[in-house]
Amino acid sequence: MYNQSDLKKLVNKAILNLSYNEEAEKLNDPVKYILSIGGKRLRPVLALMACNLFSDQIDEAVIPATGLEVFHNFTLVHDDIMDHAPVRRNLPTVHSKWNLNQAVLSGDVMAFIANECFLQTPARCLLKVFREFNKAAIEVCVGQQLDIDFEKATIVLQAEYLRMIELKTAALLAASAKIGAIIGGADDKDSEILYEFGRNLGLAFQIQDDLLDIYGDIKVFGKIMGGDIISNKKTFLLVKALEIASIEQAKQLHDQFALKEFDPETKVKTVIEIYNQLDIKNISETLANDYINSSFSLLGKVSAKNERKTELVNIANSLIGREN
Amino acid sequence: MYNQSDLKKLVNKAILNLSYNEEAEKLNDPVKYILSIGGKRLRPVLALMACNLFSDQIDEAVIPATGLEVFHNFTLVHDDIMDHAPVRRNLPTVHSKWNLNQAVLSGDVMAFIANECFLQTPARCLLKVFREFNKAAIEVCVGQQLDIDFEKATIVLQAEYLRMIELKTAALLAASAKIGAIIGGADDKDSEILYEFGRNLGLAFQIQDDLLDIYGDIKVFGKIMGGDIISNKKTFLLVKALEIASIEQAKQLHDQFALKEFDPETKVKTVIEIYNQLDIKNISETLANDYINSSFSLLGKVSAKNERKTELVNIANSLIGREN
Repeated sequence: MYNQSDLKKLVNKAILNLSYNEEAEKLNDPVKYILSIGGKRLRPVLALMACNLFSDQIDEAVIPATGLEVFHNFTLVHDDIMDHAPVRRNLPTVHSKWNLNQAVLSGDVMAFIANECFLQTPARCLLKVFREFNKAAIEVCVGQQLDIDFEKATIVLQAEYLRMIELKTAALLAASAKIGAIIGGADDKDSEILYEFGRNLGLAFQIQDDLLDIYGDIKVFGKIMGGDIISNKKTFLLVKALEIASIEQAKQLHDQFALKEFDPETKVKTVIEIYNQLDIKNISETLANDYINSSFSLLGKVSAKNERKTELVNIANSLIGREN
Repeated sequence: MYNQSDLKKLVNKAILNLSYNEEAEKLNDPVKYILSIGGKRLRPVLALMACNLFSDQIDEAVIPATGLEVFHNFTLVHDDIMDHAPVRRNLPTVHSKWNLNQAVLSGDVMAFIANECFLQTPARCLLKVFREFNKAAIEVCVGQQLDIDFEKATIVLQAEYLRMIELKTAALLAASAKIGAIIGGADDKDSEILYEFGRNLGLAFQIQDDLLDIYGDIKVFGKIMGGDIISNKKTFLLVKALEIASIEQAKQLHDQFALKEFDPETKVKTVIEIYNQLDIKNISETLANDYINSSFSLLGKVSAKNERKTELVNIANSLIGREN
């Protein structure tokens, strides 16, 4: 059995061993940069754990798993353009460090480097795996579109928000777990359960991410606290708050988000105060926990020995209790 | 035997039948827009002609061929961002009609819609076809990077320019012809010849495109005449002119391209005058013709009956004699 740390090392090694068309060096510099500045490698680690549920041989899954990470980082590079984000993981984003055109183009090539990885899936399941990946890739784009649409929407319902993060975040985690399972030799039923496991994990993960923007620690989390509030981002916290707020509280929230000029600290403080009045932290944590619990009960149904499931339980727990 | 017009119709029909994830309509509007505003469908038509060389059954090739067109249009959407191009085919570019973020994201999803098409390649040759496509996709990105790099370079050699267009334009045409041949059942030798055929065609095509910017007709070509001169774009014409210019002529050219403020018409006229002194039109046409002749001699080596090659000869000729 491989643990999270083993798998992360395997993935990092595979990332370093990615092959590039080196004829235009400038194209690859941002790719190597974004892939080097870390992160948890959650998607490939999840895929490899799912594979390891069914097989002791995970070698065949390493390159496709790496494709998931390359694709994920492709979306980060382009999302950061769309969000005008200057910083990611305490370092400049690609479009800040280079420029917009470079971020568009180096992002683009990552989509095809990801393809390259999926083309190295074992022949016996290549088509199944690639279809699963590609479906998720399209869903991630759809989710990003809904996220953009929500920026301009005055009202976003909780169900709409959850569907958005299901597409933007959970679809890829779900596909990661399923892809790992398929390569590991799981049957259709188990592969599908792994998909649902990853989907629930992804939903929990995104709600936790929304929470950490406000209740996390900047040193470990690498983002400005309350950045989502400052940038008027629709998060689960805000959507939920507006849903259950009194008329007065809703007005206060709308007023804060309508301010053209403001002191960031005051705005963050005011909004958090309303969140606290509404018990938003607790409500959000409860929902994230519900999703994690669902993921555990799904994992229970997978036809693999319980001791093989430990690492997936650990990673699910760490997503909820994590500080970075 | 299918002719160019039959095949274009087949491709246009397949484009209309593409399936979309419709959950975020705004994502697909720009995709449908860019795919609807025409063009010659050169890449899929080439693929289908190459297929038809070896097989009367071209149905299996239609969807992968359509993937080539979707990918090509993905690059157009993103290239237009990078070039700040307001107009394509006499209509607003995606980022002008919508906005930058929409052009990035709707472009992105097209890469995965293209994948979707390639995943529908017959199983017997899916891996081979997808690898060929993906290699070309990466080369197109590399070529675009070199094109961007050249913008800032003071000197670009003819060989460097030709390599750039080989990657940016010819690689995909080469892959298109090869992919069609593979699906049609060609052996490795013939597939490779078709690749070389497409490569030569692509080089001729791009030089012709550079020529048309100056010597074409705006009504049929859909671009401002001399647009490349106005925007200081390195073209084969400019690269060649700087290579053979006298010191005085080179200085005049550099002066024109260094102007911060200028009357567009005067600049275009001045530059064309120098091109005319240097016989650039004739030199460029000769080189484009050389590439077309090479493509014909390659086609001669393909083990298919001569009468099956007529449509490929016609399309190659039209690329050189074409006015749009």
